[in-house]
Amino acid sequence: MLIPRLIERKRDGLALTGDEWRMLIKAYVAGQVPDYQMSALAMAVVWRGLEPGELAALTDSMLRSGSTLDFGSWATPRVDKHSIGGVGDKTSLLLAPMVACCGVAVPMISGRGLGHTGGTLDKLESIPGFNTRLSLDEAMAQVRKLGLVMVGQTPEICPADKKLYSLRDVTGTVESIPLISASIMSKKLAEGLTGLVLDIKTGSGAFITDPAQSQVLAKTMIGIGEASGCKTVALLTAMDRPLGIACGNALEVIESLEGLQGRGPADLMEVTFALAVEMLIVGGIDSDPTAARERLEETITSGKALQLFARMIEAQGGDPRVVSDYSLLAAAPVTMEYRALADGVVSEVPPRKVGHAIIALGGGRSKTEDSIDPAVGFMIPVKPGDKVRRGDVLAEIHARTEADAERARTALDEAIVIGKSATPLPLLSHRVTADGVEPL
Amino acid sequence: MLIPRLIERKRDGLALTGDEWRMLIKAYVAGQVPDYQMSALAMAVVWRGLEPGELAALTDSMLRSGSTLDFGSWATPRVDKHSIGGVGDKTSLLLAPMVACCGVAVPMISGRGLGHTGGTLDKLESIPGFNTRLSLDEAMAQVRKLGLVMVGQTPEICPADKKLYSLRDVTGTVESIPLISASIMSKKLAEGLTGLVLDIKTGSGAFITDPAQSQVLAKTMIGIGEASGCKTVALLTAMDRPLGIACGNALEVIESLEGLQGRGPADLMEVTFALAVEMLIVGGIDSDPTAARERLEETITSGKALQLFARMIEAQGGDPRVVSDYSLLAAAPVTMEYRALADGVVSEVPPRKVGHAIIALGGGRSKTEDSIDPAVGFMIPVKPGDKVRRGDVLAEIHARTEADAERARTALDEAIVIGKSATPLPLLSHRVTADGVEPL
Repeated sequence: MLIPRLIERKRDGLALTGDEWRMLIKAYVAGQVPDYQMSALAMAVVWRGLEPGELAALTDSMLRSGSTLDFGSWATPRVDKHSIGGVGDKTSLLLAPMVACCGVAVPMISGRGLGHTGGTLDKLESIPGFNTRLSLDEAMAQVRKLGLVMVGQTPEICPADKKLYSLRDVTGTVESIPLISASIMSKKLAEGLTGLVLDIKTGSGAFITDPAQSQVLAKTMIGIGEASGCKTVALLTAMDRPLGIACGNALEVIESLEGLQGRGPADLMEVTFALAVEMLIVGGIDSDPTAARERLEETITSGKALQLFARMIEAQGGDPRVVSDYSLLAAAPVTMEYRALADGVVSEVPPRKVGHAIIALGGGRSKTEDSIDPAVGFMIPVKPGDKVRRGDVLAEIHARTEADAERARTALDEAIVIGKSATPLPLLSHRVTADGVEPL
Repeated sequence: MLIPRLIERKRDGLALTGDEWRMLIKAYVAGQVPDYQMSALAMAVVWRGLEPGELAALTDSMLRSGSTLDFGSWATPRVDKHSIGGVGDKTSLLLAPMVACCGVAVPMISGRGLGHTGGTLDKLESIPGFNTRLSLDEAMAQVRKLGLVMVGQTPEICPADKKLYSLRDVTGTVESIPLISASIMSKKLAEGLTGLVLDIKTGSGAFITDPAQSQVLAKTMIGIGEASGCKTVALLTAMDRPLGIACGNALEVIESLEGLQGRGPADLMEVTFALAVEMLIVGGIDSDPTAARERLEETITSGKALQLFARMIEAQGGDPRVVSDYSLLAAAPVTMEYRALADGVVSEVPPRKVGHAIIALGGGRSKTEDSIDPAVGFMIPVKPGDKVRRGDVLAEIHARTEADAERARTALDEAIVIGKSATPLPLLSHRVTADGVEPL
């Protein structure tokens, strides 16, 4: 296999065979294909794309480069939800216990905050003692016992993806829908899933801001999932404003716990239920969305979902009392109200600006090695379209110091825009399945 | 300067600034930009191309990465001819002394055979003792003294191009007109030229087989030359069949020497004169092509060009008696006639097949480190369009062994195609200058 010839074929817009992709990835992980060839190939893929057969082979070979969760003949359906990243998005914390209460196992491997977005691992780790670093065996055992686990990626999962992603990150080859799809799907399929629900964020705060591209991404990932026998559905949801009110790790845990007690913000609960309903459907528990929704609501009214969340916290080394005693979570020493500077309508709450302001407060990372402060962040109860009057409280700043809070206040001047009108995206815009795209 | 951001800009079809290219190349040569970033960028350039300002800056920074021939205030015009590679193309050996006799200095830095094509250095080195490895100072001194030098590239010339070309060679990023143009022109401009004539080969045996692309290449290289104050002209010449009769290093030297004595094949002499005329015009010796042609013919009829060629051979350590005693050149132990298998018309003499057959005889390289046998090759007096009868001699095979000759005979079955008709390209099709393209 002459690598330059393969690169040339992709450069010229032709497809490589599945076997060629498999040999290539194997050789790359083994150090037999140098980075400078792989990066040139990656750029050719950014240019030319990948055909479905190439995508399947690339994903499969990244998946097979490492260990996977192998549930053998276990009959329980296993469904995960994956979001491509947003601000204020704590749906995972809510839907994992809700869905697990309904007989669908949730082996959830999550990530940390990336860019302006938050990460499920960072949120969970604001719970004192919570351990997201389980081995694959420990994770599998917990899934079998409790029906859910929420952990971080381990080095044994998809090492090829890890190596390739690091290279793409420094060679301008991240922005490729096929490469993004293969990267995500290889890690998700490593969870031994029978089904997967994708939350494809759209709008200014999403990684992909063009709605047409969001649909292409959804279809590409669904194609990979279905080709691997994993039933996959995607919802396109709004990320032109933060989801819910809380933005910041511990604040979001509290909002999630509130949600599990029936007191979550309307937008957060709507998205959570919509995703959870899809999880029950792909899990084969319900075929009727209304029945699924009722089943899920019952996990909240009965307190079972909260209970299961507490059991999971305990199983993963955290303090389960946190579900009823939020004072066990880190709290910021300084809180400050942010008030409207003028009368008008909230026209925009751009998630990127909110996300970057959280990073500036110390609640996110500029560099991978940064440590984060779980306590800081914002409570932003206003949404685009809300009428406000000068002096109304639009947000609450949670900061380490007065100076930080003052800087955050200045950041919010740009992150909560008051104007004359608003044109927010619909919270749930499309449902994408292997059969096509359906507006919601 | 964040390299990934530069790669992303080129990937997205935007131009980098001249300063960015200069810093990038400098950092690359210094080992501060890794190969994996440069190869991704090169692929983005293959995709997106380079704007004229980028091309000029890239070429200039490669040129400045090393030493150059610096003739200071020397008033003599300096003109080189560069061909993008062909089979049987020995025009350099003819026109260099012819042009130098007319008052234009020719500081010619040539290459070796590449792929199926021959190389001027390999041809010259079939002259016993001929040394193509002069230092830049020696080369300059010889140009000032004799008016010409024919040498190989030294490591001091364009090290950035050398490093980048080696990388492109293994990353599928060779086939890019801007990158090819910048690579060639950086090395040519390092010769301290006042003018340059390009021989852009077209047709099946050229590296670029699409005639439209040949014109783009010509225009791109001319743009770079003119931007550097080097008057540059290109002729598009046929490479759908070998040029001249001799194909093989020593055989081509003999044919060149015959040409310098007025006995060269018509096609070879026509291309040689056309290129040499352009050299005198860009050199400012003549403005009228007819006058230039007469001046050049006189260098042959008077014997001056042959004499100068002999003096150059002597100056570079070779045996000058070779010009009148071809037996001083290596001769192949086996010669074999190749005869027509059928009546018909020679429809094709594909140069790639001839070139590969020469490599198989040992007269070219499969790998850079291969040594070559100067004696082997072919004499192919027939041209597409010639009527032939079964049994006519179509070629003479010069080989090391009978077995080699037999294999070459089989190769010629495919390299001299007899059919019903031929549609050869015009020998000289277009003249390209900074002002545009003119059919010939």
